Amino acid sequence: MSAPHRYVHRVQIDEVDAAGIVFFARYFGWCHEAMATMLESLEGGYAGLLNRHGIGLPTVHVDADYFAPLRFGDAAAVSVVVETIGTSSCTIGFRVDRQADATRVASIRHVVVLVDVREMRPVPFPVELRAVLESRRCAEAR
Amino acid sequence: MSAPHRYVHRVQIDEVDAAGIVFFARYFGWCHEAMATMLESLEGGYAGLLNRHGIGLPTVHVDADYFAPLRFGDAAAVSVVVETIGTSSCTIGFRVDRQADATRVASIRHVVVLVDVREMRPVPFPVELRAVLESRRCAEAR
Amino acid sequence: MSAPHRYVHRVQIDEVDAAGIVFFARYFGWCHEAMATMLESLEGGYAGLLNRHGIGLPTVHVDADYFAPLRFGDAAAVSVVVETIGTSSCTIGFRVDRQADATRVASIRHVVVLVDVREMRPVPFPVELRAVLESRRCAEAR
Amino acid sequence: MSAPHRYVHRVQIDEVDAAGIVFFARYFGWCHEAMATMLESLEGGYAGLLNRHGIGLPTVHVDADYFAPLRFGDAAAVSVVVETIGTSSCTIGFRVDRQADATRVASIRHVVVLVDVREMRPVPFPVELRAVLESRRCAEAR
Repeated sequence: MSAPHRYVHRVQIDEVDAAGIVFFARYFGWCHEAMATMLESLEGGYAGLLNRHGIGLPTVHVDADYFAPLRFGDAAAVSVVVETIGTSSCTIGFRVDRQADATRVASIRHVVVLVDVREMRPVPFPVELRAVLESRRCAEAR
Repeated sequence: MSAPHRYVHRVQIDEVDAAGIVFFARYFGWCHEAMATMLESLEGGYAGLLNRHGIGLPTVHVDADYFAPLRFGDAAAVSVVVETIGTSSCTIGFRVDRQADATRVASIRHVVVLVDVREMRPVPFPVELRAVLESRRCAEAR
Repeated sequence: MSAPHRYVHRVQIDEVDAAGIVFFARYFGWCHEAMATMLESLEGGYAGLLNRHGIGLPTVHVDADYFAPLRFGDAAAVSVVVETIGTSSCTIGFRVDRQADATRVASIRHVVVLVDVREMRPVPFPVELRAVLESRRCAEAR
Repeated sequence: MSAPHRYVHRVQIDEVDAAGIVFFARYFGWCHEAMATMLESLEGGYAGLLNRHGIGLPTVHVDADYFAPLRFGDAAAVSVVVETIGTSSCTIGFRVDRQADATRVASIRHVVVLVDVREMRPVPFPVELRAVLESRRCAEAR
């Protein structure tokens, strides 16, 4: 059982909305950033997949449950695990906590598919990428 | 059976990502805009709820499935229906199509809760808001 | 003397910041949208320049002065004029007013250059694009 | 002469636009983040000013010159200096370089005013805030 990948994001002043809480859609960007940092051990990182090999990881499904709000000044602690891995798609689970008091903030799941971005056709995970995903395989982040 | 509320959003140049397709998180903002325009018949609209009455509609759950990408220059046709209405929460369904050729792009669901934004406690839907929601009640947008 | 191009943007809930006012950087996106709508009479619009011809209008300079805040529920009335036109660059002036009471909100200037986006080299304005720009030439929007 | 404050931002996948380069308006958010990190030595940081004291630093003027594009995978090295300090306003200069090769990317200036956010009236800089600003006073970041 692997340990989750960890990522911290500080809430910026323009990430809260008129109700004074972080706009729900903002969390998806943070999760995507967290996933990208999980892939940093690949040569060139996530950007390298796209820039060098023309492959990307578009999201085909997300779901999210929100339990508590975040506000300006909070830090979001994001835990990332890989829940399932198929031939060219995987399910990534994110748990977001308020760093200061470990309050559970949100539980989010992304399903991403590796594609040739020109054709938008699935391609199997290369060995190195699969190895990184396997290293974070776990059922428990959320 | 009510007709869906309709909303059109033109994809802006900064809404696509490095893969050349609209970043998946962007759709949630459009859906929120579509919901806000659905509430325009209320006095003061959605902003009025917040500015005059201190109540808002934070999102407590979303799920989304993406079927086809949108690109710069596309227009997104968003259909909105209210799937279920409770005392202070409701489920809103969104279907996003590419306007030019009616390709199905995404199917999205938001669960929102009416809250006093100061306390973040649920409050029952006022009569006028409930009436607008009821007028779009339908099971078929998605 | 030409009339300014007009564009209206309603402030969205996630465009205000933790201070309750529209985050200053948001105005630039609206101005860019306003410019894009000004180019809609071109075949394929602004997106067509990029998608069909591989040319774009990156911004090389901006300046902005902010006079009054906008809040959630406000509408921004944007007036657009073309201040100067060169071989492959032009200066576009934007005036942003609060629609409800005509309060002057911001005065913004963008300098954009037409480039081949692959090479990032300037290219002269095509005749049709120059004609649209000339039709909005004016010194008085700001 | 003080040393500039340093801040690094990695370009995210959704910060580039349809032309494949970072959208010009994105830089202002990074500069704002860089300014906020410069203020971290204050108790509670920049967020503390707003959350505890009801004061904020809205931007009343910006100007920016862009010299080279950034793309997905690049890191932006931001240098921050305080150019001038008045009673309740100051001018902050930012220089953005591409970290990998020190290419000069952009030169940006923000004028911010300390205000009571409820009244939107200027208030003089408190001693601690002024001291942090003075510690980064320099004419040379840009």
